[in-house]
Amino acid sequence: MLRSHTCGQLRKEHIGTEVTLCGWVESKRDHGGAVFIDLRDRYGLTQVVIGPPEANAALITEAGRVSAESVILIRGKVANRLEGKTNAKLATGDIEVRSEHFEVLNPCATPPFTPGQSDLPGEDLRLKYRFLDLRRPAMLRAMVLRSKIVKTMRDYFAEHDFIDVETPILGRSTPEGARDYLVPSRVHAGKFYALPQSPQLYKQILMVAGFDRYVQVAKCFRDEDLRADRQPEFTQLDLEMSFVDHEDIIGLIDGLVARSAKEVLGKEVKLPLPRLTWDEAMRRFGHDAPDLRFGMEIVDCTSVAAKTEFRVFRGTADAGNFVRGINVKDAATKYSRRQIDELTEYVKHDFGAKGLAWFRVEDDGTLWSPISKNLEPEHLAEFKTLMAGEPGDMLMFLADSWEVTCKGLAGLRKRLANELGLIDPEVLNCSWVTEFPMFEKDEETGRWNAMHHPFTAPLKSDLAMLTESPEKCRAQAYDLVINGSEAGGGTIRIHDAATQSKVFDLLGIDEATAEDRFGFLLNALKFGAPPHGGIALGIDRWVMLFAGLDNIREVIAFPKTQKAADMMTEAPGRVDTDQLTELHLRSAKVVK
Amino acid sequence: MLRSHTCGQLRKEHIGTEVTLCGWVESKRDHGGAVFIDLRDRYGLTQVVIGPPEANAALITEAGRVSAESVILIRGKVANRLEGKTNAKLATGDIEVRSEHFEVLNPCATPPFTPGQSDLPGEDLRLKYRFLDLRRPAMLRAMVLRSKIVKTMRDYFAEHDFIDVETPILGRSTPEGARDYLVPSRVHAGKFYALPQSPQLYKQILMVAGFDRYVQVAKCFRDEDLRADRQPEFTQLDLEMSFVDHEDIIGLIDGLVARSAKEVLGKEVKLPLPRLTWDEAMRRFGHDAPDLRFGMEIVDCTSVAAKTEFRVFRGTADAGNFVRGINVKDAATKYSRRQIDELTEYVKHDFGAKGLAWFRVEDDGTLWSPISKNLEPEHLAEFKTLMAGEPGDMLMFLADSWEVTCKGLAGLRKRLANELGLIDPEVLNCSWVTEFPMFEKDEETGRWNAMHHPFTAPLKSDLAMLTESPEKCRAQAYDLVINGSEAGGGTIRIHDAATQSKVFDLLGIDEATAEDRFGFLLNALKFGAPPHGGIALGIDRWVMLFAGLDNIREVIAFPKTQKAADMMTEAPGRVDTDQLTELHLRSAKVVK
Repeated sequence: MLRSHTCGQLRKEHIGTEVTLCGWVESKRDHGGAVFIDLRDRYGLTQVVIGPPEANAALITEAGRVSAESVILIRGKVANRLEGKTNAKLATGDIEVRSEHFEVLNPCATPPFTPGQSDLPGEDLRLKYRFLDLRRPAMLRAMVLRSKIVKTMRDYFAEHDFIDVETPILGRSTPEGARDYLVPSRVHAGKFYALPQSPQLYKQILMVAGFDRYVQVAKCFRDEDLRADRQPEFTQLDLEMSFVDHEDIIGLIDGLVARSAKEVLGKEVKLPLPRLTWDEAMRRFGHDAPDLRFGMEIVDCTSVAAKTEFRVFRGTADAGNFVRGINVKDAATKYSRRQIDELTEYVKHDFGAKGLAWFRVEDDGTLWSPISKNLEPEHLAEFKTLMAGEPGDMLMFLADSWEVTCKGLAGLRKRLANELGLIDPEVLNCSWVTEFPMFEKDEETGRWNAMHHPFTAPLKSDLAMLTESPEKCRAQAYDLVINGSEAGGGTIRIHDAATQSKVFDLLGIDEATAEDRFGFLLNALKFGAPPHGGIALGIDRWVMLFAGLDNIREVIAFPKTQKAADMMTEAPGRVDTDQLTELHLRSAKVVK
Repeated sequence: MLRSHTCGQLRKEHIGTEVTLCGWVESKRDHGGAVFIDLRDRYGLTQVVIGPPEANAALITEAGRVSAESVILIRGKVANRLEGKTNAKLATGDIEVRSEHFEVLNPCATPPFTPGQSDLPGEDLRLKYRFLDLRRPAMLRAMVLRSKIVKTMRDYFAEHDFIDVETPILGRSTPEGARDYLVPSRVHAGKFYALPQSPQLYKQILMVAGFDRYVQVAKCFRDEDLRADRQPEFTQLDLEMSFVDHEDIIGLIDGLVARSAKEVLGKEVKLPLPRLTWDEAMRRFGHDAPDLRFGMEIVDCTSVAAKTEFRVFRGTADAGNFVRGINVKDAATKYSRRQIDELTEYVKHDFGAKGLAWFRVEDDGTLWSPISKNLEPEHLAEFKTLMAGEPGDMLMFLADSWEVTCKGLAGLRKRLANELGLIDPEVLNCSWVTEFPMFEKDEETGRWNAMHHPFTAPLKSDLAMLTESPEKCRAQAYDLVINGSEAGGGTIRIHDAATQSKVFDLLGIDEATAEDRFGFLLNALKFGAPPHGGIALGIDRWVMLFAGLDNIREVIAFPKTQKAADMMTEAPGRVDTDQLTELHLRSAKVVK
């Protein structure tokens, strides 16, 4: 190595030692004929002094000229810092290196921003100069955290006898609904590979092959219009096990969560993780990935609403819809009328609610609201009792369809908790949602869609309802929720051809389509497929949640923008017509 | 779990225990009213008996009907096998399970082949039914070995402070010479991503970003016409370090080799691994990845040939070419004239040699050959001395250009060693080849090509020759060789813009081309790039060599054929015209 020590390594016990350090010039100060440089590398920061008597005038002049973020090598002796100049915040803050030799290994041109500056430029510029952005300690920390989380996962599964198997990137179209990225074949004219949306079919094949326990950290691809937290390529911890039911998978992942939290964050997670059924999650939180770091649970007050003469409440109940509310504790004086109007706009605009009803619980225990005059005192009292309202609370209600009350109140819960600071950023709250419905109806076409994917097995107890009452049929499906985000999901798979057939029928996938899209899996299932199931964990999401960040691009070394572009390499890019010809393609558009 | 134990777990101490096993029917025998099943899973084989008194007649009949490779579940008590019926070769050979319950979890249709059969069908059928092929113990062993090797590597690099960073799969064209796989962009009409041929540029960027030590098990892609041991997608252990020279990288990988050999194969490898310069490798073995498991080194006899009157030898020497030979020990009587004719055809056809000269060392120590009459006895004696010939040896010579003698003799060495059984299959022989030339001349165009890639740094001592004598300029490059195969290769990179510029000039890469192809790296190098270097190890090759296999497809779960097709999924496949339209493409060919 060119260096003898890293920039994070030297302590008092090294005083007097001759060392060689390499690193980046974080900052530079000129003090009475000596140059002070904070030298940075991945491991830390060390103060270097280039001054007399160790350094001669030429060296001091050269050091004075070095630009920030240049890479230098220095050699010198470790020395005590002057009294009053020690820095307790820095691991190396007791010492400095008095440099006898100073060498610029590579100068730095004037950078558009420096990693140390507090007012960061916009994300586009940071993505373009990703090599500068990644020098920021926060970015480095996130990438190191990512590396540790993935390593912990790999260790855990290796200890549990999983075989790490790589599945192909150049594959066939998968049936998971999203758009595939395609790769034209040169050898097979007019044919295309597809990048995998997940290794789903391959991992099931591995179970048919008797691998028993498969794991992979897998790159997956979806050519979708990107939301803030989606990337065209993303990473999953993907696993599959044979001869298991959902308890085995959940128990295994419980252990992984506790292990990761402990090893990576030093946090204790109590096991088993709490579980909600999907039904309960929708009832209590209006969401299938509820944030359990705070309360503010949804309460159904339709029975009271039905008794009132208030048109909005009564009408809703009569139409078979719902009046559901949340109790925002101690918020009565925290929201002005204007702020409540904003919340009303929010539920209308984002969730299609017709309005927001609200009540303040007054000091005397009565409910006050612009609409309270439309309600009888005994009904107001019943609302208060159901909602466990106490003086100072704010009660908020939506009167709408089940779906709109779920979405709107879930949205309100999340927004209010953030605004009121109800969420402790140090808490890592993990739980399971289970017993998802097998199917959801596409309201436009009236067709059934698989809520997870078409290979998901129904609960044994619901098997009989598969054909007659598909809407009631629950799946052997389970989602891991961390801090109100879906951090993983899995299912037990259908391993017999008869059930698979029934599900395809329901989904309107005819034999020819099934054969064309995943014939090889259906074929494999005929040759001795064991009962099996698995789960996929979103690595990018895990890292983001573990790091306490809210931008997925901060946990990916080289992310794409929301337009699926790489600002640094300028991918995607133009290619020669020759290349297209070789691929038997013509471009239908000419690029300016 | 559906099972209480695996099929490889039960021993004498379990006798009397009630167990539930799941697995595949490896084989079935009917013996006097009882059915004996060898039940298989990933962990082993257990003998199950379905017979009286534990099983009733209906159960026995059902068991008698189960087809091979069906998945079953049985419950029963572990019992001693009858005297004389134990099987010492089987870990579970002392016991059997006497089954009270028998259940077919999934039947198996008549398979085209069974994993247990000794006469395997052709590779195409095995690839089509990969889920059956992967049930073969040899395939499972190879995949488990792969998983272990990769885990060992990851552990090793984690212990050495490497950060595991994922680099993008959807990237830009890389400049490494092979054809890229392209991915059309939907959002950016007429533009394309390229799948990476290696993470080369990204890992250099990570060094510029100060990551110091990067590692990744990376999928790489090359759209080449495939040789037997190439795949369109392959896996590399890719790493990069800052502030290092080649000794650091070599020392690090030495440790990895020893650790992997020890942990995965239980073999001791002596460190440091032997090193040859490229020059020495070509002189002594004619190849840059010499097989050091046996001798048969190449000896240059041009000086003797120059003294003879034999036209072929003398003419070669006079033309500045070479007469070089190998001593095939104790082979004088092992090769008939016809077999030698075959060897002659081989060097002519495969390497363009003009012929093969050979001599037997007779019992009296003289050399005999059809051409020995053309040579003076003293010259024959000199040949013998140079070649260290002893009675019974066979000496073989090529008289040709340096390149042809290298290639031809390297080919002969390999072929003869295999034919004569000189290679101990248990030996794992690892070594380094260093000091590669920076450039090789394209004989057709007369242009210089980079032997590794255009970012390779020259040896410091050779820096001055870069422009005047590029042919003499050696690179800071190093290849790891295992059992005569290149198992990895790396270089120290150019970290300063001036040297990079000179190398581009030599390679005929003008500024615009450089800017277009890897402008972002050149840009990054301006902002404080540390000296850095790295290596990439071919994982598929490592696993193949560690497993003692010679077909790369046997160490990949779902490989492509030599025509880059997946026989099981039938990828690549057709896509809808709509999909192409969305991608702004038209197919120039119609697929039948």
